[in-house]
Amino acid sequence: MAEYILPLEKLIEQFRRLPGIGKKTAIRLAFAVLDFSPEEAEAFAEAVRGAKEQVRTCSICQNISDGEICSVCADTNRDRSVICVVEDAKAVMSLEKVKEYGGVYHVLHGAISPMAGIGPDKLKIRELIERLGDGTVEEIIIATNPTVEGEATAMYLTKLIKPLGIKVSRLAYGIPVGGELEYADEVTLMRAIEGRRVM
Amino acid sequence: MAEYILPLEKLIEQFRRLPGIGKKTAIRLAFAVLDFSPEEAEAFAEAVRGAKEQVRTCSICQNISDGEICSVCADTNRDRSVICVVEDAKAVMSLEKVKEYGGVYHVLHGAISPMAGIGPDKLKIRELIERLGDGTVEEIIIATNPTVEGEATAMYLTKLIKPLGIKVSRLAYGIPVGGELEYADEVTLMRAIEGRRVM
Repeated sequence: MAEYILPLEKLIEQFRRLPGIGKKTAIRLAFAVLDFSPEEAEAFAEAVRGAKEQVRTCSICQNISDGEICSVCADTNRDRSVICVVEDAKAVMSLEKVKEYGGVYHVLHGAISPMAGIGPDKLKIRELIERLGDGTVEEIIIATNPTVEGEATAMYLTKLIKPLGIKVSRLAYGIPVGGELEYADEVTLMRAIEGRRVM
Repeated sequence: MAEYILPLEKLIEQFRRLPGIGKKTAIRLAFAVLDFSPEEAEAFAEAVRGAKEQVRTCSICQNISDGEICSVCADTNRDRSVICVVEDAKAVMSLEKVKEYGGVYHVLHGAISPMAGIGPDKLKIRELIERLGDGTVEEIIIATNPTVEGEATAMYLTKLIKPLGIKVSRLAYGIPVGGELEYADEVTLMRAIEGRRVM
């Protein structure tokens, strides 16, 4: 007999595609799905499909959104003179939780990494520069991760934006170096916003 | 803004339903799904649905199966005079990997647990007894887990089956191969001494 019956084998394979899920965990999760009611399994499958179908990127800030424009960009109370530049949508979620920041965002969808073949052209930097054209923006807060790639991206953006006469700041090192924004606790994130430095 | 946009929130919720998946892991997995291609997401959703729709229980041994009868019961080379009784389908998979056992199985779908309100009537014990009617079966190997519930189930089955004149055995307890004596717990050591064999 094959190790697992085909429908189960397929499900285990799919779980193994996910980051941090090894074979044993995938098997455990697949058996858990078998224990679901048909309705629960359907809801799970529909959530996977729905997330992929309905989540798009905001045409202004490139954040994930369920509409043409994300909820931050659509909010008229947000201060459009400050743009916080992050690597990914997860970072926006983390910063929004703090409720300290009232500006808008720009999601780069990555960081410069020559090792991985990711140059500035692969990121949403052109879209960011376009947003600076009308003179509304007074400050750019660079909130890329405190990693080699995040730092390289911060340096690149500083050199690009400072000559335009716009203040460029960087989140303070309240964030543990080598860590990722996603895992920072809220107080640390708040300190990092308060202590941002002019670059 | 809500913490996450709705389609993402729904997906995170679904991942949190799975055992051992906390909030942070669920968020990580949901974002990983967003990075899937539409075809990959569809394959994932389809695997969840397919597993639930196509996996049923074997009408003989109650093991999971993609047909009326599972591959073990359908295999004419298996020895039908020995039935190994396990708590769940995962145990069948584990035992099948060993390639040592040539008999058939019976899956109870649980173990007796008065604390959780699971009595013998909630398990597939009636189906097991029915299989013993025609005189084919000569031995029952009880392979329930070495937990309080597994032990209670083993005792219950022994009392039920022994009077039928069928040999009842239990998997050997002892120190796991490759394990070290100093890390074995006292109950395991006691069982290992009790079950010692003459060399």
